[in-house]
Amino acid sequence: VTGSRVTALGPGGEFDRIRAIWKRLGDRVVCVGDDAAIVTIGAERLAFSCDMAVEERHFRLAWLEPEEIGWRVGASALSDLAAVAAEPHGMLASVGVPPEHAGDFLTRVMDGLGDVAATVGAAVWGGDLVNSERVVIDAMVVGRAARPVSRSDARAGDGLWISGRLGAPHEAVAAWLAGGKPKAVTRARYARPIPRVREALWLAGKGATALIDVSDGLVGDAGHVAAASNVMLRIIAEDVPVHEGVERWESALVGGEEYELLVTLPPAFGHRQASEFTERFGLPLTHIGEVKGGHGALVERNGKPVELPQGFSHF
Amino acid sequence: VTGSRVTALGPGGEFDRIRAIWKRLGDRVVCVGDDAAIVTIGAERLAFSCDMAVEERHFRLAWLEPEEIGWRVGASALSDLAAVAAEPHGMLASVGVPPEHAGDFLTRVMDGLGDVAATVGAAVWGGDLVNSERVVIDAMVVGRAARPVSRSDARAGDGLWISGRLGAPHEAVAAWLAGGKPKAVTRARYARPIPRVREALWLAGKGATALIDVSDGLVGDAGHVAAASNVMLRIIAEDVPVHEGVERWESALVGGEEYELLVTLPPAFGHRQASEFTERFGLPLTHIGEVKGGHGALVERNGKPVELPQGFSHF
Repeated sequence: VTGSRVTALGPGGEFDRIRAIWKRLGDRVVCVGDDAAIVTIGAERLAFSCDMAVEERHFRLAWLEPEEIGWRVGASALSDLAAVAAEPHGMLASVGVPPEHAGDFLTRVMDGLGDVAATVGAAVWGGDLVNSERVVIDAMVVGRAARPVSRSDARAGDGLWISGRLGAPHEAVAAWLAGGKPKAVTRARYARPIPRVREALWLAGKGATALIDVSDGLVGDAGHVAAASNVMLRIIAEDVPVHEGVERWESALVGGEEYELLVTLPPAFGHRQASEFTERFGLPLTHIGEVKGGHGALVERNGKPVELPQGFSHF
Repeated sequence: VTGSRVTALGPGGEFDRIRAIWKRLGDRVVCVGDDAAIVTIGAERLAFSCDMAVEERHFRLAWLEPEEIGWRVGASALSDLAAVAAEPHGMLASVGVPPEHAGDFLTRVMDGLGDVAATVGAAVWGGDLVNSERVVIDAMVVGRAARPVSRSDARAGDGLWISGRLGAPHEAVAAWLAGGKPKAVTRARYARPIPRVREALWLAGKGATALIDVSDGLVGDAGHVAAASNVMLRIIAEDVPVHEGVERWESALVGGEEYELLVTLPPAFGHRQASEFTERFGLPLTHIGEVKGGHGALVERNGKPVELPQGFSHF
């Protein structure tokens, strides 16, 4: 086991707590703060990550089919591997359910976990099933990271790019929370997010300097890259691609659980390369700003800085 | 990734559910049913396992210090690596806590996880922290398994051996559930179980044919070995070593969460080798029966079969 560094995290109470814990653990901890831990075991460089989702905190049973609940948790963990440009191999899933959900519901949750793993060539290796008052799912993923990309090497002058189109998961949740139903098009993006694994490996091959998946919201995750790389990320709000069905542009900037890739690329990477990406993956790759000297994420709209919440809070 | 087999599990509703899930997952799952999944990635043969513990189902906050809660979950996962004779390298921990426990309590839980990992040479590689109504902890562990021992290769004629002394965790929980306080000596065994990693590697080197850690209770776990190996395990109840402070011999046979090693060894392994084990690890290794043709776990006391519950249920 090699490596031993703690990447700087952006602002926020959750990150303060994480910092306190890693500090306390001292020598007993290696390689944290990036989306996934990168560890060398023997001849292999591996990436590990885990994501836990709890009923009523991360999702509501009434919103989703059991397969979608499993899919979402699996996708979120696999997206962490994409975020370090690792190739997923396997998944372990610990699931807690109340006794009345231990039959068909549980099997369908595992089905969703298995399905999303299969889309990126990974298999379910095992797990743990326990009795719990609330549904709780923890997906742990393992990948190979031959050439990992961290979030800490963005350089002034790099371009800032985003895959896909943003805002849909945020507006789906907002619709449910308002007592309504989301549009089919935003619901679908929330229910079955796609871990951008192949896209990440391609971007790594094109010289990506920093990579992160948008789980805390574009502005929040840009803040993490800025903090880790010790630079400023300037985002041009009107250039951020908004998903079909999204009504407020702010949703694309602050909405979490997108699992799209935010990537910094050398200036030589331009629109010709972005077209190649789109042709290959059927997905836009959009220039939304640049890396500059300074600190934090700066959002500009119509040439003026705008203040937006930095980070995504669960309901 | 190689391998693809599902080990037979013993009887019980939980195992019926696990069987149903693995069947449904079909090709999307590899290598489950043993204590840990054994997977070959590139040049490395690795072992993975995870264990989830939920407040009020697996432990009560009033019973344990936060460090002990973390230690126990970590020990349980690391013990799964011991059970396949793998050498632990790292741990990921997902922890859900209510907001009032997100400070000192959480840090102390992580301290316990880090401490038990350090005792077996493993480090904490990362994790996930989430907001949850009840405390929930999932520890995922990664080890190297150069020569894994499964639970499925016990052969008629092998001796049946157990490390340590049993019954203490069961009686500690029984005391709490009865509204009292456990004795210090049984409480200590419950609060800080020891993953028998070095002991397992030594036993593997001595030709262990089947290995399992006692998490479901001696009789229950013997049933798993019997089912997986397609043999009968005969246990001589009066030979099972009872821990100091334990009042009922049955506690040693049915009590779970012991994390001692139940191992089958070729007939050539005798008391001289067991003494060597004790000298090396300061722990008894006791002959408690043998492997025979047949099915299931047979418990005899004073030469007569006795019926005991096969398996450990959480309160």
